[in-house]
Amino acid sequence: MFCALLSGGSGVRLWPLSNTTRSKQYLKVLKGEDGTDLSIVQRVFKQINQSNLKNDNVMVIANKLQSGILQNQLGEDICLILEPSRRDTFPAIMLACAYAVSEKNAKDDDVIVILPVDPYTEESYFESVKSLEGIINNTNADMVLMGSSPTCPSEKFGYIVPESKIDGVMSVQSFKEKPDAKTAQELIDQGALWNCGVFCFKISLYKEIIQKYGILPDYESVYENYNLLPTISFDYAVVEKCEKIIVVNFKGLWKDLGSWETLTEEMATTSLGNTIIDEHCNNVHVVNELKVPTVVMGIENAIIIASSDGILVADKSRSAFLKDYVKTATVRPMYEERRWGNIRIVDCTETENGIYLTAGITLHKGKDFSYHIHYKHDETYIFMSGNGKLIVDGVISNVHPGMVVTIPRGAKHSLHATEEMKFLEIQSGFAAADEDMEKITLNWSEIEISNFVTNL
Amino acid sequence: MFCALLSGGSGVRLWPLSNTTRSKQYLKVLKGEDGTDLSIVQRVFKQINQSNLKNDNVMVIANKLQSGILQNQLGEDICLILEPSRRDTFPAIMLACAYAVSEKNAKDDDVIVILPVDPYTEESYFESVKSLEGIINNTNADMVLMGSSPTCPSEKFGYIVPESKIDGVMSVQSFKEKPDAKTAQELIDQGALWNCGVFCFKISLYKEIIQKYGILPDYESVYENYNLLPTISFDYAVVEKCEKIIVVNFKGLWKDLGSWETLTEEMATTSLGNTIIDEHCNNVHVVNELKVPTVVMGIENAIIIASSDGILVADKSRSAFLKDYVKTATVRPMYEERRWGNIRIVDCTETENGIYLTAGITLHKGKDFSYHIHYKHDETYIFMSGNGKLIVDGVISNVHPGMVVTIPRGAKHSLHATEEMKFLEIQSGFAAADEDMEKITLNWSEIEISNFVTNL
Repeated sequence: MFCALLSGGSGVRLWPLSNTTRSKQYLKVLKGEDGTDLSIVQRVFKQINQSNLKNDNVMVIANKLQSGILQNQLGEDICLILEPSRRDTFPAIMLACAYAVSEKNAKDDDVIVILPVDPYTEESYFESVKSLEGIINNTNADMVLMGSSPTCPSEKFGYIVPESKIDGVMSVQSFKEKPDAKTAQELIDQGALWNCGVFCFKISLYKEIIQKYGILPDYESVYENYNLLPTISFDYAVVEKCEKIIVVNFKGLWKDLGSWETLTEEMATTSLGNTIIDEHCNNVHVVNELKVPTVVMGIENAIIIASSDGILVADKSRSAFLKDYVKTATVRPMYEERRWGNIRIVDCTETENGIYLTAGITLHKGKDFSYHIHYKHDETYIFMSGNGKLIVDGVISNVHPGMVVTIPRGAKHSLHATEEMKFLEIQSGFAAADEDMEKITLNWSEIEISNFVTNL
Repeated sequence: MFCALLSGGSGVRLWPLSNTTRSKQYLKVLKGEDGTDLSIVQRVFKQINQSNLKNDNVMVIANKLQSGILQNQLGEDICLILEPSRRDTFPAIMLACAYAVSEKNAKDDDVIVILPVDPYTEESYFESVKSLEGIINNTNADMVLMGSSPTCPSEKFGYIVPESKIDGVMSVQSFKEKPDAKTAQELIDQGALWNCGVFCFKISLYKEIIQKYGILPDYESVYENYNLLPTISFDYAVVEKCEKIIVVNFKGLWKDLGSWETLTEEMATTSLGNTIIDEHCNNVHVVNELKVPTVVMGIENAIIIASSDGILVADKSRSAFLKDYVKTATVRPMYEERRWGNIRIVDCTETENGIYLTAGITLHKGKDFSYHIHYKHDETYIFMSGNGKLIVDGVISNVHPGMVVTIPRGAKHSLHATEEMKFLEIQSGFAAADEDMEKITLNWSEIEISNFVTNL
């Protein structure tokens, strides 16, 4: 079986800890059995590796902005499929199937299961996912889904309505996306289940679908023609058009930690970071990623979250509506995890001479910035800890803590960390680095040799 | 009459906007009639200048840490008496009297009135203060006080109990500091007034008191022997020992804006700064001094304050107890106004090679840093806007936006702003500037001449 985990979402529902590069699934708000901080996605992979899915071809489909954080959290050897652009679940799942065909040699009769990268469940969930392969092979169903027994008439979920109110494995009659509470209750009375977002089908179905768009089923073709696929959900594009759908009722723990209210229910502690909560507070969760303290007094039923991106103070029941407000609040992400480490913007001052952006950067041991040029801004590095090698216009130098180096606009440069480095970077000019960068091919290993030869 | 305004308080009750250098009286949360932002102390001086106190000798007694912000807000020509160390109101008032004697030629029969620098009152208050001079001259009282009619049995104030329940001018029977609510109600029933912290007496009384400590009444003697005066309040040390005390009942508006609950009642708007408050909020005040947004949803009866110093989220009724919690929270002030401008710390990173502290600095036009040396840390300036002159070890250079200059430890340096300058300063080493600074005498006007002569 092929197993593709879908990592979507811009994560505004958990702002200000999540942003376009750091979605909810990467927040380390959970605790492992050994007491270490764990993100939702790390918990899922731990569970997969303890289940009998571990020997299957597990892949992750994600936006390219998330590749750095995924590799940081799951290791560099995860099988990562990067969307060429952010669309919706239908194109992303098509790409995952194409990858299985081209890179994993998936045949028409092979089964692929798509699951979200972020369910908060117990291990039996993954055993249940594994069982879907047998169900699709033993029935003539086009599609097998997983549903969870509703615990309340929630307006946040999709509902799967089975043909009859029987436990276990059922044929699907219809779907209802985010009904109002009254309708939800009626559906529950009919035996409806929450849709867990798990899709199990054969590669042959994928080939039928992709053919309709005039695209060949191989990875390169789908990748190149990604923009021809409609930006819609897999549910609308495929599932609701299938003739024979079966749903399996998963009866164990299943939660969507997609709002602060549900996420804080699973948090190991009521506060993280530098916080002071007085004894008059009740049912309050506080996460403070800033260095300065957060003091909370006499507040009830609220979540208080502070990060470099902003501050949220919300009644728990209101927090599910955050999405509507964060649109207005969104600025560029102030904290990002990247392939090479992380960057935290600490100041941005606009003057008539341009923008001065100050960031604290961690470059992990052995990592480097690609060789590149900025045309519109200068960069000053103030090295704080760890040693590295800096190349500017072909000249290489060792850099150490205490050094201050300015890279003028127009100069080619790269930095390589021989051990973990921390430094300040001040960008000054008329564009921040992300929009003012031209990459140049350079092989660091060659440069290092020339460094030893010239003994610089 | 001499009039001395007492500016005390470390201001923790309005943390995180106030800190050791920025007390509540300096927060620009009020609005003037013309719509400009006004601090409490600016409002008081505006009122004094519109009252018939304006022709009296008005002085301000403050801690030396506050001299910069006082001059910024009130102008450089205010008469400022700086305490050599922070003690209590008794030593501070003694110093003010000594200053009146030595610098203002106050005679034994002259009257001095001490008032807090931060009452939130109407103009008739200052007329009432002015009238105290006549009252002390026309009675044989040692001390005349002002009391305000209580509006509730507050536990936060001192109470003045008059001999009989008569309106207007009364003899004082006793005092009660911060009684419980029940006692407060009993006192109010007896006609007690809230103590406004106004003390009116003759210079001859001052001379009697200071003599008891073996100190001559001139300014230099009191300043030199400041540590010999006990660290107690003027109420305990003097007022409660006076034989004949009179209290004047001030019946106009009088409020102590000493807690977030009382201060927000007078704020011109419910929010300041980058804030988003949803329609489910009620009786919420939000002040955000950070650049990133603060989003507030479904919160009631609360104040939410964010600054570089920290974040406070408190039920309004609990905010009066802030003092007990901020002790634990206090770090060094992250924002300070100084004689020369202001400094905001944006990052502080501790490494095994020392501390890297990054600050955004504004140096006002015509101002300069005194000529000085640091022995334990280097400083890198990144000039962002405005031109100035930098002197390093006797060599002067013009500095402009875009320049990056590192001052190594041990180098004498000073900076002068020929126009308003903004720059980043990164201190790196083992001590922050305040504790690692040796001032050197230098006359900037002389240096500027040598600059023109050598044409550097």
